[in-house]
Amino acid sequence: MRLRSLRERELVAAIRRDFRRPARGVRLGIGDDAAVIDPGRDGLLLTTDLLIEDVHFTTAIQPAYLLGRKSLNVNVSDIAAMGGRPRFALLGLGLRPGLPREWVEGFFSGFKAAAGDSGVALIGGDISGSKKICISVTLVGNAERSVRRSGARPGDLLFVSGDLGQAAAGLKLLKRGLRLGRNPQADTLIKAFLDPVPRVLLGRELARKRLASAMIDTSDGLSVDLLHLCEESRCGVEVDLPALPISPELRSFENKPEACALHGGEDYQLLFAVPPGRVSEVLRLRKKHGLSQIGKFRRGRGIFLVDGGGKQRPLESRGFEHLA
Amino acid sequence: MRLRSLRERELVAAIRRDFRRPARGVRLGIGDDAAVIDPGRDGLLLTTDLLIEDVHFTTAIQPAYLLGRKSLNVNVSDIAAMGGRPRFALLGLGLRPGLPREWVEGFFSGFKAAAGDSGVALIGGDISGSKKICISVTLVGNAERSVRRSGARPGDLLFVSGDLGQAAAGLKLLKRGLRLGRNPQADTLIKAFLDPVPRVLLGRELARKRLASAMIDTSDGLSVDLLHLCEESRCGVEVDLPALPISPELRSFENKPEACALHGGEDYQLLFAVPPGRVSEVLRLRKKHGLSQIGKFRRGRGIFLVDGGGKQRPLESRGFEHLA
Repeated sequence: MRLRSLRERELVAAIRRDFRRPARGVRLGIGDDAAVIDPGRDGLLLTTDLLIEDVHFTTAIQPAYLLGRKSLNVNVSDIAAMGGRPRFALLGLGLRPGLPREWVEGFFSGFKAAAGDSGVALIGGDISGSKKICISVTLVGNAERSVRRSGARPGDLLFVSGDLGQAAAGLKLLKRGLRLGRNPQADTLIKAFLDPVPRVLLGRELARKRLASAMIDTSDGLSVDLLHLCEESRCGVEVDLPALPISPELRSFENKPEACALHGGEDYQLLFAVPPGRVSEVLRLRKKHGLSQIGKFRRGRGIFLVDGGGKQRPLESRGFEHLA
Repeated sequence: MRLRSLRERELVAAIRRDFRRPARGVRLGIGDDAAVIDPGRDGLLLTTDLLIEDVHFTTAIQPAYLLGRKSLNVNVSDIAAMGGRPRFALLGLGLRPGLPREWVEGFFSGFKAAAGDSGVALIGGDISGSKKICISVTLVGNAERSVRRSGARPGDLLFVSGDLGQAAAGLKLLKRGLRLGRNPQADTLIKAFLDPVPRVLLGRELARKRLASAMIDTSDGLSVDLLHLCEESRCGVEVDLPALPISPELRSFENKPEACALHGGEDYQLLFAVPPGRVSEVLRLRKKHGLSQIGKFRRGRGIFLVDGGGKQRPLESRGFEHLA
């Protein structure tokens, strides 16, 4: 997309041209009072996220292109956490005066790339002025069968995909002034923060094969997201500290990698419960999707950390401070 | 809704309790990674609007309760303009520090009342901090048959519901320090701005009976919204100046009531094209819905104003400045 100015009319026309490609299920896209989509047969999933400049992101540390990608992908991750397939997006965008044209072009270029990755069609939105950049994405997905937060039962095993704490460590490095391209190990962490990859295929496979009894994505950090799973499922959980997936990169940059893995947010991995009878099947997917078995649900309430020697202590849920 | 604090967890829990009532078509509401709704049989309409403090509204002139109503209703109006039935809402809300609890309670109370008026269920959302209040509503509707902006043909007649310019005049009075409850005539104008009533029943009737060939709601002002209709329908239009619905209230408070009717925005009335063969049926609905026949579509491009003597002049489309 190339823009001559940031006037609303022109911007909308450019977006409309750029995102015109017809998509399955879209009867009417950008440019009317509302978009029209086919209902289809499957249940419809709907999620929305609000990203506000200097609360959830800053232009100083997040390139526009990657922010465009991430704005969509954090919503794609919510659909993945339900076991769904992302389909249609609406984008509300508040742009502040003086924002360079290149920033807006970069943002849309990233948004479009992420939409292409996930097979998402942009079908509508709203653009206006704002004091701080404000990004609101609503995403519609489909799922024949969706996985909720509330289905975990005592005895179910706890699994997580990928490595924990990567994004939080990456954000710390960015705040200390490090940027992409200086150190390959640091890049792994920084990329985890700037350009998280939602786990759509994993979520869909778990839902389709009925392998997960409950699921959530790790956006607020393991300790908080686990609390959500436990509260909704009305049970407790024991987390096996030595089993936490901590990468060599996290160990080399963090003094307390375990704390970072437990409380660092924005990894956008999937955290899910597996009934004992389905564990062997999930273990067969371990390599393909990079899964770790990190604990077990139990009766009662509370999250307990079990160390290598079998000692237990309660784990406090700490809200992850995204930027502040 | 009564809040003890504005901490995100507590607020989400309170909203969840307050909006818990089960609604038809909702399989899973607030509280998971995404909401789940039944696809149903009809086409799904999706629209989103971003309202930003000091750009689209100010807390000084807009009471929280009425702002809550309006935040939903501007989206309801978009669904009405497609001839649809509003069903499910998602709400993204950025709240600034120091905002009184009562403001948030008032906002949700208004949002809930408007949702009740339109039969809308709140199924999800996102809450965060923000420097300025930021309100993002996404609304899902249904329509067996939807009416687009692009269907007007030369010879179709132009109709509008209600009175024009009311909201713009009301906003002017508010800016001059007038408030509700001081002057009954002024109240009519001020209410039009603070608490617009979306025309859902009219929109649905026009769509169901196939009476409108094209439709839009008057959010940006007649001259701009008409430009959208003409551009999408690839035709021009003649507007009959003496036929514009201008209320006695508008005439008594505005020096140039015609200009206000032509360019004032935020009335959220329906502006639509009617094929000649359907006009008599629309005229039968005139009283019931308060309709005026105000012009005629023609070949070529451009919007022309025709005065009482039959003289024509081109009408410039002026963007309505909502608050600035």
